[in-house]
Amino acid sequence: ESPLTLPISATGSGGMEALISNLVDTNDKVVVGINGAFGERASEMFKRRGAKVFEYHVAWGKPLDMEELAALSKDQFAKIIWAVHGETSTGVKNDIEALGQMKHESLLIADCVTSLGGVEVDMEGWGIDALLSGSQKCLSTPPGLSPVSVSTRCMEHLVEKPTSWYFDLNLVADYVLKGGPRRYHHTAPTSMIVALNESLRLILVEGLEQVIERHRRASLLLAYELGSRDISLLVDEKYRLEPLTTVQIPPKFIDNEAQIRRVLLEEFKIEIGGGLGPLQGKVWRIGLMGYNANEESVARLMEALDKVLV
Amino acid sequence: ESPLTLPISATGSGGMEALISNLVDTNDKVVVGINGAFGERASEMFKRRGAKVFEYHVAWGKPLDMEELAALSKDQFAKIIWAVHGETSTGVKNDIEALGQMKHESLLIADCVTSLGGVEVDMEGWGIDALLSGSQKCLSTPPGLSPVSVSTRCMEHLVEKPTSWYFDLNLVADYVLKGGPRRYHHTAPTSMIVALNESLRLILVEGLEQVIERHRRASLLLAYELGSRDISLLVDEKYRLEPLTTVQIPPKFIDNEAQIRRVLLEEFKIEIGGGLGPLQGKVWRIGLMGYNANEESVARLMEALDKVLV
Repeated sequence: ESPLTLPISATGSGGMEALISNLVDTNDKVVVGINGAFGERASEMFKRRGAKVFEYHVAWGKPLDMEELAALSKDQFAKIIWAVHGETSTGVKNDIEALGQMKHESLLIADCVTSLGGVEVDMEGWGIDALLSGSQKCLSTPPGLSPVSVSTRCMEHLVEKPTSWYFDLNLVADYVLKGGPRRYHHTAPTSMIVALNESLRLILVEGLEQVIERHRRASLLLAYELGSRDISLLVDEKYRLEPLTTVQIPPKFIDNEAQIRRVLLEEFKIEIGGGLGPLQGKVWRIGLMGYNANEESVARLMEALDKVLV
Repeated sequence: ESPLTLPISATGSGGMEALISNLVDTNDKVVVGINGAFGERASEMFKRRGAKVFEYHVAWGKPLDMEELAALSKDQFAKIIWAVHGETSTGVKNDIEALGQMKHESLLIADCVTSLGGVEVDMEGWGIDALLSGSQKCLSTPPGLSPVSVSTRCMEHLVEKPTSWYFDLNLVADYVLKGGPRRYHHTAPTSMIVALNESLRLILVEGLEQVIERHRRASLLLAYELGSRDISLLVDEKYRLEPLTTVQIPPKFIDNEAQIRRVLLEEFKIEIGGGLGPLQGKVWRIGLMGYNANEESVARLMEALDKVLV
């Protein structure tokens, strides 16, 4: 039901910037929930755009407290509440649905980069006014596009002429949505769009619910296998982002954790992520996204880990 | 010799915006040469960024008078002179070399979207301080990347913190150029970068001079063939942009020019461009770029035109 749903011709951070530069004017009040790197990034973009930014921080690895976030937004009469759905830097899934119920007059914008296509995202049902994602996570497309969706209500709040021409959603919407003679905004990255279209087709063929269930099962199996080896997860079960599992590096491997990741990559062709920000050197981030979210991938990883973690 | 030469993760207009948002602060003086749609676009981006923009206009289809452009820039003590090298909307090649000799203290920025890889571009020799291009023109890569290059002199004029985070060249340079532990800015569009790398490799294998010569010969043959059919070109020979030839639509075909382009596309699988802006309905734009710049393409087009233009 969103009138503007299309892939921005840039990677996920470009989609963030597109939404931000089209929704805020100088001195607009914005509340940003921050419990990881991508909340920080959104806040930085809002500040560069000249917004008055109120940051609500929670420790990395913990979920945002949506009551407190919504209360801050209400107290400040904020135009926008921004929150990450799947925080890629920590593996936390924030409860956007709860936030949507408490957002009051604010526009709720959700970063769904590591959630769309891997876990449930119900834009309308949850009261999300705009969201963005990335092509290369659960959608299984190469990186290079950022799908965004803007609700009818949110369209009314678009800035008339944002500082950015490239990301101007009014111009892009004119190009994409208006009838009449074909208009031109910028040259579309055609091969990426074909790739995204094919990825979405494959998701429809499998069935979105089945795809999400496959992510859930892969994630559960991974958690079980890690638990059986006494490796702890960073995030409480209730808030775990299924496509991205963050594990506490066992103390005896902390000192050579980068070396272990290198061996996994070079000898086993398996890439796992290191920690970011305050979690650097403390956690590993294991992605099970898109076509890679299956029990075989978990088995392959565990076999490799059993050889490497000795 | 440019310290920052890399593809921006966006299409050509994204590269324009990257250079503009990193080089101007509010109220900086900028002189823009305009003789087509892409000069207009640059001016619009500068204005949105808050620059004081002095536009120097010449009729679409005519080359910029570089003495007048340089004089305006000198009179205004402009920080930047912006000019299009290959104006894709008209097929005019502006004499950037001449402008470089007269730029005084200004930074000369050149839009080389439809010139790089198809005609000579001598960044250092011509005194260009920064340039941008697009992957999908003479470089024969799919659309989606914008190669840019910033000279040492120009690096000193980068804005410390541009409004755009996505296009922030200082952050991107930190990621791409600095030694030490790998930094992260945004996820790179990897498959596009692989494609660009392969395209550049193919140009090196053929030899850049040979590639440019191939563009020149294809363009000359096209002009000859069109001339022999009494079809006039829009641009004087001296200023013709070899990869893009703009023809005056013969009067008897003006009324159904769109239909002719449709037949060419549907029946002959040949796409030629319509006119933009004031040239709409008056000209056709014929691209001979990259792998398509050869005498066989010209022969195929002429064969089709001979059937269609009756």
